[in-house]
Amino acid sequence: MLFNIPFIFYLDIFGTIVFAITGVLAASEKRLDLFGVVVVGMVTAIGGGTIRDLVLGRTPVFWVIETLYIWIIVGTTVATFIAARFHPFPHRTLQVSDAIGLGVFTVIGAQVALNIGHPPVIAVMMGVMTGVFGGVIRDVLTDEIPMIFQKEIYATAAMVGAVVFVNMRWYLPSGMESISALIAMAIVIGLRLAAIYWNLQLPVFLLS
Amino acid sequence: MLFNIPFIFYLDIFGTIVFAITGVLAASEKRLDLFGVVVVGMVTAIGGGTIRDLVLGRTPVFWVIETLYIWIIVGTTVATFIAARFHPFPHRTLQVSDAIGLGVFTVIGAQVALNIGHPPVIAVMMGVMTGVFGGVIRDVLTDEIPMIFQKEIYATAAMVGAVVFVNMRWYLPSGMESISALIAMAIVIGLRLAAIYWNLQLPVFLLS
Amino acid sequence: MLFNIPFIFYLDIFGTIVFAITGVLAASEKRLDLFGVVVVGMVTAIGGGTIRDLVLGRTPVFWVIETLYIWIIVGTTVATFIAARFHPFPHRTLQVSDAIGLGVFTVIGAQVALNIGHPPVIAVMMGVMTGVFGGVIRDVLTDEIPMIFQKEIYATAAMVGAVVFVNMRWYLPSGMESISALIAMAIVIGLRLAAIYWNLQLPVFLLS
Repeated sequence: MLFNIPFIFYLDIFGTIVFAITGVLAASEKRLDLFGVVVVGMVTAIGGGTIRDLVLGRTPVFWVIETLYIWIIVGTTVATFIAARFHPFPHRTLQVSDAIGLGVFTVIGAQVALNIGHPPVIAVMMGVMTGVFGGVIRDVLTDEIPMIFQKEIYATAAMVGAVVFVNMRWYLPSGMESISALIAMAIVIGLRLAAIYWNLQLPVFLLS
Repeated sequence: MLFNIPFIFYLDIFGTIVFAITGVLAASEKRLDLFGVVVVGMVTAIGGGTIRDLVLGRTPVFWVIETLYIWIIVGTTVATFIAARFHPFPHRTLQVSDAIGLGVFTVIGAQVALNIGHPPVIAVMMGVMTGVFGGVIRDVLTDEIPMIFQKEIYATAAMVGAVVFVNMRWYLPSGMESISALIAMAIVIGLRLAAIYWNLQLPVFLLS
Repeated sequence: MLFNIPFIFYLDIFGTIVFAITGVLAASEKRLDLFGVVVVGMVTAIGGGTIRDLVLGRTPVFWVIETLYIWIIVGTTVATFIAARFHPFPHRTLQVSDAIGLGVFTVIGAQVALNIGHPPVIAVMMGVMTGVFGGVIRDVLTDEIPMIFQKEIYATAAMVGAVVFVNMRWYLPSGMESISALIAMAIVIGLRLAAIYWNLQLPVFLLS
């Protein structure tokens, strides 16, 4: 297990479910069929971790080894597909859940890289990739410019959390691992919710 | 060799040629140059198997080890590029050929995963990925929402065939491998052709 | 080191910087924020080499092992992001620099494949992929049909250079490695600049 506390395992499952749902909802304006919806939900939930595992050479990738992720995503996407026909989705609840997923995936991605001995800069990159690349692939598949490049602070929240987590892991004794993870997650979630609430954005790039 | 019968090897080559041609034709409305056409034909033909090999950790991927695939695709795409200038393509023949390619690639993908000991759910996923992801990358490169997410039953035919094949491999004695492969291929091809003939579609996802 | 001459290492760094800048400029019309610009610059600079390493099974990929690339790209993209607000970019200088980057990356990609014993056809493919696939991913992320499929001779220049390089490596004694690399680079750069100057294009594919 990545951490000594099963709490983070449950958060990982929670993040997987939430990201699968956001994938399904992103697909809703594109007239995708049931299979398309399942695929888009799946890449959103496991895409970031898959790219992380590929570039680090951790193959077979995580969901080939632990197929629980697949079953959870299939169940979640089919249930969302059906439920969405009967009542509207609680948009606000989803945004908060998505922020939690972002925080969990970011910390897990950074932890994976550190555990196999990679330097801090790679751990930060893997944290950010695990947190946001699922959403990037989702947007490419549905023919959009990836939202995270254009909207309020999103990947930046992941980057700040990953930097904090990697520094705490680097300087604090190893017994502090779990508390470092929780603090870093809280930072990602707090930044993301603050960005939504006050509509914070990074400067947009325009040629002079 | 994956199976004891060379018949399936010839079908694999056939599927590679057919998928390369569909890639070239998909490129035709996009004003791509000769190189672009070769690349799109190549990713359509080898894209699914490449992603399968990457996530399973079977590297170098299959076409690096067996370069015959590359030569066949280059020859096919250049010949199609030239031939398409002189006479129209037999659309109906291509659809049937594409269905055969889908059946072959799906069974090969599932067989690869089972042969190295992965569980049934992974074998089904690898079958579907090998069958359809080449077309998904083709559509992303030509700036379309992947067709398989929107059109008549396509990936679903691959999934049903993969499930049948994996179950037959799981419950039948190992001598039945080749016959299982042929039955599963026939199911994929039959479903796909029935979907084209009667215009069968999965329900489309729309928010209520 | 890939070659005996440090000259090529400096060219590699130069190519990384130039490609990161072209990524930033490609992002300029898309209203991406600072993070989006850094990501697009990064995939443009390291995307081709990353896909090459993945399909060859050279994992962890090159920039996980040598993090210098990451730092150079982050510095380059942030500097470009800031500088572009104050004065226009020298378009002509960038095109020449981009041609140099293409030549360097192509030769490095082919050399990597030959060094680990792959056959000539794979070395040519890896050369072309290393040279052009960063730009392909850049265009997919910014929702464009990849430019290299549509514009003047680009990937074709890389292919010609890669074929020349692989043949020289194959037939000439091993002491001629560095001179072969320089000749092949000169061919790529010369072809590319000639294509820009005289607006040379490959025939476009249209169905009759």
